[in-house]
Amino acid sequence: MYRLYDYLPSGNGYKVRLLLSQLGLPFERVEVDITKGETRTPTSLARNPNGRIPVLDLGDGTCLAESNAILHYLAEGTAFLPQERLMRAQVLQWMFFEQYSHEPYIAVVRFWHMHGGLSEDRRRQLPDKERQGHAALAVMDRHLADNTFFVGGRYTIADIALYAYTHVAHEGGFDLSRYLAVMGWLDRVRAQPGHIAITQG
Amino acid sequence: MYRLYDYLPSGNGYKVRLLLSQLGLPFERVEVDITKGETRTPTSLARNPNGRIPVLDLGDGTCLAESNAILHYLAEGTAFLPQERLMRAQVLQWMFFEQYSHEPYIAVVRFWHMHGGLSEDRRRQLPDKERQGHAALAVMDRHLADNTFFVGGRYTIADIALYAYTHVAHEGGFDLSRYLAVMGWLDRVRAQPGHIAITQG
Repeated sequence: MYRLYDYLPSGNGYKVRLLLSQLGLPFERVEVDITKGETRTPTSLARNPNGRIPVLDLGDGTCLAESNAILHYLAEGTAFLPQERLMRAQVLQWMFFEQYSHEPYIAVVRFWHMHGGLSEDRRRQLPDKERQGHAALAVMDRHLADNTFFVGGRYTIADIALYAYTHVAHEGGFDLSRYLAVMGWLDRVRAQPGHIAITQG
Repeated sequence: MYRLYDYLPSGNGYKVRLLLSQLGLPFERVEVDITKGETRTPTSLARNPNGRIPVLDLGDGTCLAESNAILHYLAEGTAFLPQERLMRAQVLQWMFFEQYSHEPYIAVVRFWHMHGGLSEDRRRQLPDKERQGHAALAVMDRHLADNTFFVGGRYTIADIALYAYTHVAHEGGFDLSRYLAVMGWLDRVRAQPGHIAITQG
């Protein structure tokens, strides 16, 4: 059985939980408190030398890290990842967009609000983080104005990857109400069979 | 024919140039000066709404963005991307590591040194950027102490993705000499057939 090293408030962990649930795959969840340094213990570092969650143990001790690589692994051969070459690349394009241009702003500001609040250093970085977070939301909104889902007109792991932190962006102070196409897409993602909430372990 | 919108000093652009060269695929290179805002013109934004290079025009006007998604697209079905499910996921794991835990530190500090130098704001961010850059190099070094290449004992797009900014890390002030396994791996990558330098258009 799969074992997921996870942290419940983490959007990156949630991506994997959500897909496992939608694939109907049973898994054991092991909570790792990232705020207490539990990803940096020798045991955790043996699973992922980069000291982050989520990590998926495939059942035989083989550990896979990086939320979007795990999504790709699990989705291979299912309806959540297209077969066609260009669409597969477009799915990855949005997933790399998520990790480079979205998560470092939207997820990080949410983390600050949830843990420790705004120190002087964080306060100094905040305007730039907010600007770049809104830039990412604007890119998504433009794309979703003409598209039901991110790739190929159907729900894929690109949607899962981007939904994870977008739907809780308000917890970092990002007002989504001006992004109408994003709001509609969030509803469509929530309506997918087997959907679970981020608070659901 | 492929057309690559590119910027010669960019490691992200170099990844694609290097793979195209090693695949023996002809392409037209179009230089886009990111320091002059040329990725933010209406024409550039139509190709990639996220306003970045590289962008690969597949020859029919279809544009693909995100360097690592482009690598994956080009490598599909070739020796540069394994067929086996777990190895494919491990290739992606290292590519997401590169974009999240490596590039934002090692590439960004190099960019600062090359363009504009260290403003007060950059100087304030520098110690953290350096710390996280060295953390990424240490993760690579530990892995490469036991592995010839990143995945499956052979040269893949995971190596190309990580080579691009690692081999010029010294241009951002990162001293690589303490990372012996990384140094050996850089030599092995450079020795691959069809290798080109980052300065080669």
